Amino acid sequence: MQLARVIGTVVSNQKDPSLSGLTFLLLRLLDVNNEEQGSYVVAIDAVGAGVDEVVMFATGSSARQTLVTQNRPCDAVVMAIVDEWEVEGTPKYRKTSSDDLWAS
Amino acid sequence: MQLARVIGTVVSNQKDPSLSGLTFLLLRLLDVNNEEQGSYVVAIDAVGAGVDEVVMFATGSSARQTLVTQNRPCDAVVMAIVDEWEVEGTPKYRKTSSDDLWAS
Amino acid sequence: MQLARVIGTVVSNQKDPSLSGLTFLLLRLLDVNNEEQGSYVVAIDAVGAGVDEVVMFATGSSARQTLVTQNRPCDAVVMAIVDEWEVEGTPKYRKTSSDDLWAS
Amino acid sequence: MQLARVIGTVVSNQKDPSLSGLTFLLLRLLDVNNEEQGSYVVAIDAVGAGVDEVVMFATGSSARQTLVTQNRPCDAVVMAIVDEWEVEGTPKYRKTSSDDLWAS
Amino acid sequence: MQLARVIGTVVSNQKDPSLSGLTFLLLRLLDVNNEEQGSYVVAIDAVGAGVDEVVMFATGSSARQTLVTQNRPCDAVVMAIVDEWEVEGTPKYRKTSSDDLWAS
Repeated sequence: MQLARVIGTVVSNQKDPSLSGLTFLLLRLLDVNNEEQGSYVVAIDAVGAGVDEVVMFATGSSARQTLVTQNRPCDAVVMAIVDEWEVEGTPKYRKTSSDDLWAS
Repeated sequence: MQLARVIGTVVSNQKDPSLSGLTFLLLRLLDVNNEEQGSYVVAIDAVGAGVDEVVMFATGSSARQTLVTQNRPCDAVVMAIVDEWEVEGTPKYRKTSSDDLWAS
Repeated sequence: MQLARVIGTVVSNQKDPSLSGLTFLLLRLLDVNNEEQGSYVVAIDAVGAGVDEVVMFATGSSARQTLVTQNRPCDAVVMAIVDEWEVEGTPKYRKTSSDDLWAS
Repeated sequence: MQLARVIGTVVSNQKDPSLSGLTFLLLRLLDVNNEEQGSYVVAIDAVGAGVDEVVMFATGSSARQTLVTQNRPCDAVVMAIVDEWEVEGTPKYRKTSSDDLWAS
Repeated sequence: MQLARVIGTVVSNQKDPSLSGLTFLLLRLLDVNNEEQGSYVVAIDAVGAGVDEVVMFATGSSARQTLVTQNRPCDAVVMAIVDEWEVEGTPKYRKTSSDDLWAS
């Protein structure tokens, strides 16, 4: 899997019938320091991710191992929204939630 | 998936029998700003895409998950024609249609 | 799929038994302008391609979707000999055939 | 497979249900001289690897061939902890164990 | 497939149980002129290859299509020892055998 930030969405009306109703997310890849890389991928959303969220995506046949994507022509799936990660004991990313009222 | 523009077609008469009647499209990869990249891929068309259209394609075993491509030696399929996408709320591509008479 | 030119062959006697009798072709990758790239791949021939011919090859599990390669440890197959391709309406490659006597 | 060092972990609460309870490891890729490369991957742990350990990981559909990962949207798995490797007869890495009391 | 030279071995005791007894070979990739490239891969041996031998390896799900590797978390397999290859009619590599007593 790779880490990425959702930067947008792709709209398509004329597509393989099995893809009807699915959301195509534009992902910008992140390095382990949470810095954006040049490359991107379009992935189908399996976890309700929104723009600006940091996520993990899986590729290849593994991208079809969710209920949302099985048997579909999909080679990348967002299968997790990331809460945090750390490198050598140092936090590199932590999700901040507007729902997290008790944190203030 | 990746975004791409259809730039041409490939013709082959001597090929695996399972590929008979399929259309091979030459795709130029696009970045998220709709600028053409150096790399290309040859993909089988599953959605009736034509030259100059902007599309999405899927690779690997996922490229065989359409009725057109199943069980065929095909590692890339055009599975959607793109209508539009946006990045950080800014439209980066919007399809213009010559059929779209009421838009003028 | 990618476009390539057959530049040679690889001989192996000590190999997985399922590969017995198959032909390993050395392919030089081509760009869309028919210029050779630095990278190569070794692919199994499924269509009777010869040295100097321009072909398409498929990779991954899709490389096992021919009668020649099914269930074999093969991750690249030549599944088509290319007759021609064009980019933006301009022919970039056209096969010339020594059998094509009536063309002179 | 590739060699890598475990440099951290990724935490996700909102994810595909099939991934519940699994550990996501951040891996820094190593070259054959045991020097860290720029690239990374997030892999699911199938062997109880911890931070700082040197491991091997497998990708693609092969990443689903462990009891831990089968049928899950997982494209990279840590399937071995490395004890040592050598290149041209020269050891390039040897695991040191704090349990290895009799070695002192 | 790609061409490679076996440059070493990797030892792992703590690994997925299905990998027990298999040999992990360190491979240095070769170009078509038999020159070593910077990249490497760790592959499971399916043909009895030894250090310094020139081999071919297959990747992805195709790496599991040998008796040795089937159903295992293995994404690269040495499936052939190379005897020779040629490019544009010129031999670029020919195996020399110490068993080949009658050749002297």
